[in-house]
Amino acid sequence: MSISAKPASGMRDFLAEDVLKRQYVMQRIVQAYRSHGFQPLETPAIERLDVLTSKYGAEGDQLMFKILMRADKLANADVNNIDSLSDLALHYDLTVPMARAYAANRHKLPRFYKRYQIQPVWRADRPQRGRFREFYQCDVDYVGTDSMVAEVEVISAMFSALENLDFGDVTVRLNDRRILHALLNGAGVDDSKHGNAMAVLDRFDKIGAEQVVAQLESEAGLAQAAAATLATIFESTEMGAAAYLQHIGARLEGYGQSTAAVDELSLLMRTIPQSRGIHVEFDPGLVRGLSYYTGTIMEFGTAGFGGSIAGGGRYDGLVASFINEKIPAVGGSLGMERLIVMMEERGMFPDLNNRCDVMIARMDAEGLEENLALAARVREAGRSCTVFPETGKIARQLKYAEEIGARHVLIQGTRELRDGTVVVRSMVDGSQETLPIGEVLTRLDSLS
Amino acid sequence: MSISAKPASGMRDFLAEDVLKRQYVMQRIVQAYRSHGFQPLETPAIERLDVLTSKYGAEGDQLMFKILMRADKLANADVNNIDSLSDLALHYDLTVPMARAYAANRHKLPRFYKRYQIQPVWRADRPQRGRFREFYQCDVDYVGTDSMVAEVEVISAMFSALENLDFGDVTVRLNDRRILHALLNGAGVDDSKHGNAMAVLDRFDKIGAEQVVAQLESEAGLAQAAAATLATIFESTEMGAAAYLQHIGARLEGYGQSTAAVDELSLLMRTIPQSRGIHVEFDPGLVRGLSYYTGTIMEFGTAGFGGSIAGGGRYDGLVASFINEKIPAVGGSLGMERLIVMMEERGMFPDLNNRCDVMIARMDAEGLEENLALAARVREAGRSCTVFPETGKIARQLKYAEEIGARHVLIQGTRELRDGTVVVRSMVDGSQETLPIGEVLTRLDSLS
Repeated sequence: MSISAKPASGMRDFLAEDVLKRQYVMQRIVQAYRSHGFQPLETPAIERLDVLTSKYGAEGDQLMFKILMRADKLANADVNNIDSLSDLALHYDLTVPMARAYAANRHKLPRFYKRYQIQPVWRADRPQRGRFREFYQCDVDYVGTDSMVAEVEVISAMFSALENLDFGDVTVRLNDRRILHALLNGAGVDDSKHGNAMAVLDRFDKIGAEQVVAQLESEAGLAQAAAATLATIFESTEMGAAAYLQHIGARLEGYGQSTAAVDELSLLMRTIPQSRGIHVEFDPGLVRGLSYYTGTIMEFGTAGFGGSIAGGGRYDGLVASFINEKIPAVGGSLGMERLIVMMEERGMFPDLNNRCDVMIARMDAEGLEENLALAARVREAGRSCTVFPETGKIARQLKYAEEIGARHVLIQGTRELRDGTVVVRSMVDGSQETLPIGEVLTRLDSLS
Repeated sequence: MSISAKPASGMRDFLAEDVLKRQYVMQRIVQAYRSHGFQPLETPAIERLDVLTSKYGAEGDQLMFKILMRADKLANADVNNIDSLSDLALHYDLTVPMARAYAANRHKLPRFYKRYQIQPVWRADRPQRGRFREFYQCDVDYVGTDSMVAEVEVISAMFSALENLDFGDVTVRLNDRRILHALLNGAGVDDSKHGNAMAVLDRFDKIGAEQVVAQLESEAGLAQAAAATLATIFESTEMGAAAYLQHIGARLEGYGQSTAAVDELSLLMRTIPQSRGIHVEFDPGLVRGLSYYTGTIMEFGTAGFGGSIAGGGRYDGLVASFINEKIPAVGGSLGMERLIVMMEERGMFPDLNNRCDVMIARMDAEGLEENLALAARVREAGRSCTVFPETGKIARQLKYAEEIGARHVLIQGTRELRDGTVVVRSMVDGSQETLPIGEVLTRLDSLS
């Protein structure tokens, strides 16, 4: 009985063409991030469980892939208590690991730390079309300042990355967690229920106003009338972004930190370089799932795609969980998988060369060393080259050359070895010519 | 109480300079692999446990990081049976996942599949100096042929990668699992004990001849006299590689498949391009830890380093566990972490530019939009650029410019905005000049 060759549920293999597409996307994103002065960081896939838990919210905690303790530790574990079977997990995002790594390396890092990080993350979501359990995130974060310049630079870097990939038409929806808190306070939601209420509001697009009202009642203890009033706020408006922000701001005056939030968001909206093709919207119903956000939150969309392609926000309390000192920070993350799907659908990838340039045929058992030496010379001249591994019919060898996309086949059998020649065959037009061995490399250069 | 900011045991954070060094090494390895016609593959970090188990040997199975089942499945698990708590694990190497992915995608792949794969692997080894629980492997594998050309191409690709990193002086030690089996048969070790016996022989360098003899007796049931005779074979010899192989071959004639192995190894030793700086040795005591090897095995060393920097071998039975058909294959893996340690010790890294070229100072609250627009222009001209996020003393801003390695600081305060000028300050020599804004980019180009 053979073992199933399928990847584990929700996981994918990437063959050559996929890998090259992914690298193309990553390189262009990195170029944009670096041009904005962000530096690379990589953190381990595995983190201690105490680093990751209670940062993402209840759903995130549930969707973490936890690592089973090894035998020696398990011996002391209480097998009836699931929580005691694991003290490590795969990271669920890149922001929490970055906050930990920042805290650990703070003395080596510049006063304002701008970092990018492109790595896979793992979430035990129910696998479905277009949703995977291992996927890449492309993060930029700006640590160490309250200034809105950090938000602008993060947004500008992400927008540049999208521009580099030919997504020039981008809408950024903005909100601020402080505005959400003020709205909930205004509607009479107790502080202790804000987390629940935001989780409900986050489902608005999926479940609609009616369900939101019902769930605000059942999960956040909100009176039905107040819930209905709250829900109307999240319906779309015809007002421009700046006017809408002032309108909502006026309703919230006096609640929590809404005034500071409105002022800062207003400055941010004026400062984002809209001339470059970024459309800015204010969306008081924007929540974002993760529980670590404390201020600005943002989501990027692009023409012709319903979902979001990037998101982020300010999380001024996260680093403090590792360092006992408030270190403000803001960041965002591009969803690489969605971008790739769109780019494939829209034919946005250039030709990514995955061919092996040259194949050397194997005619006779005794020519092996000479054939390998010829391959070495072709490679030294900067071309990729493979040696057909077995001797046999030339037709079979040429068929393989076609399979791997070789443009030239070099034939050096007994006769050619005796004469000091090589047959150069073009796989493009099937023509072939016999050349002195010393002229082969020059000839290849003239051919392509 | 804050949470410890250290990475989990045996794990590492890579700050910017480390990431750039690692990318430098990977790029040069990929260049060599691609020049030999190997194509990229990436497989998920997580595999089903049935894919990974029984491929690496008992030690490997123990060192796998297993994933704890999630709540819904755990409900049906037997908590007293550790094996029932997990059905997924992190991959322990890249060869087994490749064999699975090959089996799953065979119809899309060329007749001979040459792939490279550079990804982290995870092993729950006891952490110690220079040994980590997450580390990168850089694999090349050649699937689909019995021909020794596959071995030669794998060795040539790995050697080219080492050459690209300025390790030009490489020794390849060769052996064949069939020779080991013949030796063990000759010494009277029962077939069922070959695995145990090889595990003992693999410790020769660590524990010495005396302990090997004792353990062959206790773990593989070998009589002491036979064990002692066997151990003498693995002591170093003054004979040349080819002569030594023939010498051992003569002793083994008639045992198992030793004749085929000696003939093939002999051809391989003649064919490896030793002229390029590869020294070939025959080492009948070379075992390699993993249990999936069936033929040739190899280990690479380099001058001035005791341990091995690469290894590999032929594993003609591995793909068959997923496909019920014997598909021959051979591959090797470069140990990136060891190479990096050596390159750091020997100062083999070039200057890897991690600087942010230009910093824009923030003089006055009202100049923000103009400062950001200037940053956008600098970036469009191909330079990395950051905007200091807060207004304040210029001395503090220049200190930060130094921290991030900026070579130029651009100052555009109220006066400059009024005059349409920018102050260009060199961080190299401290000089500064005031230029019309239209001349700034040209001036930067002339400066570096």
